[in-house]
Amino acid sequence: MVAPIEFHFDFSSPYGYLASYRIDAIAEAVGREVIWRPYLLGAAFKATGQSPLVSQPLRGSYSLRDMERSARKLQVPLVFPDGFPMPTQAAGRAFYWLDARDPRKARDLAKALYRAAFAQGRNIAPRDVVADVAAEIGLDRDEVLTAIETPAVKEKLRTETESAIARGIFGSPFVIVDGEPFWGNDRLEEVRDWLKSGGW
Amino acid sequence: MVAPIEFHFDFSSPYGYLASYRIDAIAEAVGREVIWRPYLLGAAFKATGQSPLVSQPLRGSYSLRDMERSARKLQVPLVFPDGFPMPTQAAGRAFYWLDARDPRKARDLAKALYRAAFAQGRNIAPRDVVADVAAEIGLDRDEVLTAIETPAVKEKLRTETESAIARGIFGSPFVIVDGEPFWGNDRLEEVRDWLKSGGW
Repeated sequence: MVAPIEFHFDFSSPYGYLASYRIDAIAEAVGREVIWRPYLLGAAFKATGQSPLVSQPLRGSYSLRDMERSARKLQVPLVFPDGFPMPTQAAGRAFYWLDARDPRKARDLAKALYRAAFAQGRNIAPRDVVADVAAEIGLDRDEVLTAIETPAVKEKLRTETESAIARGIFGSPFVIVDGEPFWGNDRLEEVRDWLKSGGW
Repeated sequence: MVAPIEFHFDFSSPYGYLASYRIDAIAEAVGREVIWRPYLLGAAFKATGQSPLVSQPLRGSYSLRDMERSARKLQVPLVFPDGFPMPTQAAGRAFYWLDARDPRKARDLAKALYRAAFAQGRNIAPRDVVADVAAEIGLDRDEVLTAIETPAVKEKLRTETESAIARGIFGSPFVIVDGEPFWGNDRLEEVRDWLKSGGW
């Protein structure tokens, strides 16, 4: 029995969005599962002294260009929603609420939220929008709205975020394969090679 | 006549060192020349609000691991010299002094300095060490020592650094192909694809 690979991401991360199209196929090709783990990148930024990349001098304009170029290469749509980079507490909470019940459906929700944001340009910060997206994949809108405000669900996202940072996770996407960390959409080829070869 | 590609780097950058093994072959494969352009990454850090990656919480330990993993993948040696990350004024000045006389030899010097630092573990900050390395590839040691202290040569490195930052260059390696910027050793595959395909 091989261990699943871990896919850590923030719902506001364009590079995480790009990776979301590819990570499952990369794992499936070698018979692995993927555990999807959203967390709050802003909390990691506090730990690393960083700020959102797109807001930084010089690096910001380059990264927007690189994100668009990366999307064109992968032939996937990419737009930047109003409010980007946006808070993702509501999205993360909805994910973990559902993940405790149906991990496969939670993954579908994660993909739907990413596409709502970066393919459709919707600001997924408000809980209403998260609930809309959830309803679009067949979930109960009111149930999702309630879940987002449930203390235990809020606590779960906080715990996941703190635990990720404590383990040295600081970016999005951030993939862990058998204890080996890979940061960035541009490391997915290495993730694939590592999975196939067992490392180097 | 196709334009040369630009290879911007800092002599203290392990990712620049790794790229230094590959950039010429990538350009040659499509009949291009490479213009090597060292600059002072510390000045770019002031513009971007960054600090040396390896000194940053969480990101530092990850990046050291990633540098070593990247070197193993490329099957090139990588050691971190005493004093790393080290000042590279002397190295940059020696480069530009020689570049004005013999660009091909200046490139040889750049490669020799990078290997002295990251293959042999020598701290190339002191001008004496830069002069030693220059002498090892056949240059006159005293002439190099004099050049490093020449005001016009100092000014040249300053100007190159300011000009690079003014053009939006902020990392190492940083490659420009027909106006298109690529940041990072991990973008060299994209540089190769871009050169072959003319972009996407």
